[in-house]
Amino acid sequence: MPDPTPGSGVVALAGGVGGAKLAHGLQAQIGERLTVVVNTGDDLERHGLLVMPDHDTVMYTLAGIANRELGWGIEGETFAAAGMLERYGEPMWFRLGDRDLATHVTRTARLRSGAGLTDVCLGLQRSLGVPATILPMSDDPIRTDVRTDDGWLEFQDYFVGRHQEPEVHEVRFRGAESATAAPGVVDAIDAAATIVIAPSNPIVSVGPILAVTEILAALDRARGRGVRIVAVSGIVGGRALKGPADRMLASLGHESSALGVARIYADLATDFVLDDIDADLAPAIGALGLRTHVTDTIMSHDAARARLAAECLAWAAER
Amino acid sequence: MPDPTPGSGVVALAGGVGGAKLAHGLQAQIGERLTVVVNTGDDLERHGLLVMPDHDTVMYTLAGIANRELGWGIEGETFAAAGMLERYGEPMWFRLGDRDLATHVTRTARLRSGAGLTDVCLGLQRSLGVPATILPMSDDPIRTDVRTDDGWLEFQDYFVGRHQEPEVHEVRFRGAESATAAPGVVDAIDAAATIVIAPSNPIVSVGPILAVTEILAALDRARGRGVRIVAVSGIVGGRALKGPADRMLASLGHESSALGVARIYADLATDFVLDDIDADLAPAIGALGLRTHVTDTIMSHDAARARLAAECLAWAAER
Repeated sequence: MPDPTPGSGVVALAGGVGGAKLAHGLQAQIGERLTVVVNTGDDLERHGLLVMPDHDTVMYTLAGIANRELGWGIEGETFAAAGMLERYGEPMWFRLGDRDLATHVTRTARLRSGAGLTDVCLGLQRSLGVPATILPMSDDPIRTDVRTDDGWLEFQDYFVGRHQEPEVHEVRFRGAESATAAPGVVDAIDAAATIVIAPSNPIVSVGPILAVTEILAALDRARGRGVRIVAVSGIVGGRALKGPADRMLASLGHESSALGVARIYADLATDFVLDDIDADLAPAIGALGLRTHVTDTIMSHDAARARLAAECLAWAAER
Repeated sequence: MPDPTPGSGVVALAGGVGGAKLAHGLQAQIGERLTVVVNTGDDLERHGLLVMPDHDTVMYTLAGIANRELGWGIEGETFAAAGMLERYGEPMWFRLGDRDLATHVTRTARLRSGAGLTDVCLGLQRSLGVPATILPMSDDPIRTDVRTDDGWLEFQDYFVGRHQEPEVHEVRFRGAESATAAPGVVDAIDAAATIVIAPSNPIVSVGPILAVTEILAALDRARGRGVRIVAVSGIVGGRALKGPADRMLASLGHESSALGVARIYADLATDFVLDDIDADLAPAIGALGLRTHVTDTIMSHDAARARLAAECLAWAAER
């Protein structure tokens, strides 16, 4: 696969698992030239510790230590601390592994010592030998809430605590209006040769990133100077590969399909990648003004991640 | 063994392992009528978490989950989080087990939520089913420093970090002058029928407790109204059973013997318990005005703990 942008960077916007997989494939292609901007809207405080599910899923995945069986946390994880936390009567709906707990302990200690969120995250990534750079979208706290029949819920209460069961009627990103982009994010976008929007939930994974005004403005600038912005559909055959994106799209008035996702990104992206089984949607997506690419988007193993990533980069380099 | 003080309380002053063993024996005798006042001078912040070595050693021991092999922490402990903390470049001279870490995480979270130290400790104890009450000596931070040839060192830096190797020339308890006794401590002493000073290091385990003015005053009041204060020697045959008490006594100008310990407690205690092998010191200790009791003080198993505790209570009840 030709290197489409020698000497230049690639920025990926990513949420959790799906984003982590494509980021892993991109890292396999371009290593340290990759910057992943991750959603922090899912972050939460547990047991007095700052937990960053999307950052950590991407970090563990790019470090090669992700727990593929669970889909979160670290491989070979143990839960001795969690058993003790439960004995102490701590609320246990968000269960942390022992090694994962060490991440949150270290991060929280360094933040409390006065370090910035991005600096702390970069330090953790370096310790784990991650070649790419993973940047939180903002050092300012932004929290995703979803309105359901049970009222407004914090995202993880909905996602983990209630197993994504309530129907989502509205989404808000608390703090996004006043948040600035994290150090390095705008620079990375300004220097990017290609931007990839990973197949993460467009509403609650990519949505919070785009809600940071500085980031959206930088993406618009990039598009204006001819940088390809390649979005990959996380909806395949009308279903989310993981998580509640399909039901959430439907309940928020979108179409639960690659076309529905394409409509959300139509004003931002230049290219749209959809799965072979959705090939019949390509003309309608093309009619939105997006260049379409049809391929196998199921990243079931490392080689599939790397292939999809290479294809995204190659398409971005096409005239 | 007769119950010397039916319906009335016993207060034990204790440091770590030796104190925990005698407290365990006392709890076996009198259960919830026992209040243990523990040293907090050894407490430290690790990875942003408040670690309370003496409180936790006593708590785990009285809960029946102490790690007897290591002499600290929890039985069957694992160290997955510690391995990860090390990978993150955290200073690792104070190694915390996974379950023990959960104690520090929970405690720190509850303190940060605004709860008082004593309330937090009592909550942890209740969760572990501890029948006795374990009170930190103070909710105010008091920290033990030792002056060595390397200068002033924080206690755990000396004790764990430098393996108690430097000679100690001076000891100070930072914050003790302005500290008040923790909630419940003075009340427990005022209501005590018997007070036991555990065979902990008299300088750096019991010393900090006595450095809290309100506690020393309450002990003096108790003695004044005829309450027996039974001190147990932690020096046997001139050697500390555990830790650096013997060398510390010597370098601070005391005699490293049961007699040296007795001299430290002579103005406070009424009774002094020494080991069979130190029987020849009994007359000199008696000459200090202390009632002496010679017995086997080595608490190598649970029955020995209970027997020594029962003897202490019986002697306290003697006319």
